[in-house]
Amino acid sequence: MGEPAGIGAEVAAKAWAALREIPGPGFVFLGDADVFDGVPVARIETPEQATAAFPTALPVLHAPLAARPRPGVLDPANAAAVIASIENAVALAQAGRVGAVVTCPIQKSVLTGTGFPHPGHTEFLHALAPVAPRPVMMLASEELRVVPVTIHEALASAIARLTPGLIVETARITHDALVRDFGIAAPRLAIAGLNPHAGEAGTMGREDIEIVAPAVAELQRLGIDARGPLPPDTMFTAKARPRMDVAICLYHDQALIPIKTLDMDGGVNVTLGLSIIRTSPDHGTALDIAGQGLADPSSLLAALRLAEQLAARRSF
Amino acid sequence: MGEPAGIGAEVAAKAWAALREIPGPGFVFLGDADVFDGVPVARIETPEQATAAFPTALPVLHAPLAARPRPGVLDPANAAAVIASIENAVALAQAGRVGAVVTCPIQKSVLTGTGFPHPGHTEFLHALAPVAPRPVMMLASEELRVVPVTIHEALASAIARLTPGLIVETARITHDALVRDFGIAAPRLAIAGLNPHAGEAGTMGREDIEIVAPAVAELQRLGIDARGPLPPDTMFTAKARPRMDVAICLYHDQALIPIKTLDMDGGVNVTLGLSIIRTSPDHGTALDIAGQGLADPSSLLAALRLAEQLAARRSF
Repeated sequence: MGEPAGIGAEVAAKAWAALREIPGPGFVFLGDADVFDGVPVARIETPEQATAAFPTALPVLHAPLAARPRPGVLDPANAAAVIASIENAVALAQAGRVGAVVTCPIQKSVLTGTGFPHPGHTEFLHALAPVAPRPVMMLASEELRVVPVTIHEALASAIARLTPGLIVETARITHDALVRDFGIAAPRLAIAGLNPHAGEAGTMGREDIEIVAPAVAELQRLGIDARGPLPPDTMFTAKARPRMDVAICLYHDQALIPIKTLDMDGGVNVTLGLSIIRTSPDHGTALDIAGQGLADPSSLLAALRLAEQLAARRSF
Repeated sequence: MGEPAGIGAEVAAKAWAALREIPGPGFVFLGDADVFDGVPVARIETPEQATAAFPTALPVLHAPLAARPRPGVLDPANAAAVIASIENAVALAQAGRVGAVVTCPIQKSVLTGTGFPHPGHTEFLHALAPVAPRPVMMLASEELRVVPVTIHEALASAIARLTPGLIVETARITHDALVRDFGIAAPRLAIAGLNPHAGEAGTMGREDIEIVAPAVAELQRLGIDARGPLPPDTMFTAKARPRMDVAICLYHDQALIPIKTLDMDGGVNVTLGLSIIRTSPDHGTALDIAGQGLADPSSLLAALRLAEQLAARRSF
């Protein structure tokens, strides 16, 4: 469901319209069936009914909101329903009754205001369904998979916080998820350097020698196919991309510039380190355009497609 | 000519073979005519003879090397000829007898050993033919132009060295060159932020507020069409690229990751701030593959094409 004042229901309805005639398992919306205007809705009782309903109506496991949502206007009255939707989705996935959870964007501030103790969506999902010591964010498109070791912090702070241990932990969680969820028997990890040309033998910074290289050596010692530190500017080229299953990047934009430059809307956020499959579109609640019919479902569609691919590899 | 032990002559010969039948001004090689094997060479006396000779032979203004070059083996005996080749090219461009200078890669270490006082190729060219207070490096491809404000230094040092003045100076030199050499009357400059999401109102680092935003304001005050600080991960997307004439980037990989990810071999190095047109291929001397016929002329070809376009806009 995501944030009810955002574009979640709109992109879900558009995604249903795009997918309804395509063979496949379809999806079920966890939320309020009354928010959909002009879309046929099937109020189903169990997720197992979704596949039969999907070609003719958007399947909804109805859970009423406390207040009718107004586009773009956050309402703390609906925070409990947002949280319950996430909990219900995870519970259905843990029980094997759905193959994957695809989350629409939430607005953290409105949840935090009502006592939600988690820093974000991802941490909440990890608290509900952990398999690794912490969650790891991957962005995946048709052409590239990237994992940033540090994410939402100032670049100077991210550099200062890098350690071999942080890189190794992130890479191991990524490796294990690629084996378990992506069905890649021996994932090839490309580990980015930090400095231009990966420091060029220490002439442009020591971090590649002192932090990144030891991390790569430790990963190799653990039997993981890791290469690096690689010069960051040439590791994402068309020739280099087929040689890796994932790029482990050291900071936010080192990971996000290449994937978004190649494919702005096709990038899907995948949370690794969970006991369930979870993907999400790579955009926010878009409160500024909510309720106007302008939202683009491309990223949600990509998230649904990837979730389906990953779920198909799991038995349940 | 570039470094005689590298791939300069090889890619020049391949570029000639690729261009000889295409109408256009062609080029003249400044160096030793005896280094070419299996390629028809026309020893011409003046650059004006190059166009007539070009369809049937590679035009060379012969300047003999001191020692016969051995592929991959640097020889200080030839350093003076390398330097003279650059000086001659600049002099011909300054006299209006050639439209542009395209430089093959040099090996700085062998020149430095013989007393060459400049940090690199670009600084030497700027000493010979300055128009701005310093040279600025641009990388240009069909899809994107980028200018890094800081280049070959550790990322942490680059961040620490950023000032509004440095960004403004780089952007002004870039702006003036886009007007003068690229024929863009009112260039649109996209100024990158430093931190994720350009700092998100200071919650992820203060540099975007304290360093980048004042630089953008100053550029606007000077009448330059500058926007920023822009979130680095979304400023190079297919939708964003047509909205700018150049991206001013704050560090090496912020500029080079997007351009190389989009087009590994098509990127051309252009030096702004010179009184002449100068482009160069975006690779090094490739001593490891010299003499084996393996060198790819794509980047030199792109450099020649761009030089021709830029020269055509100048009257001389």
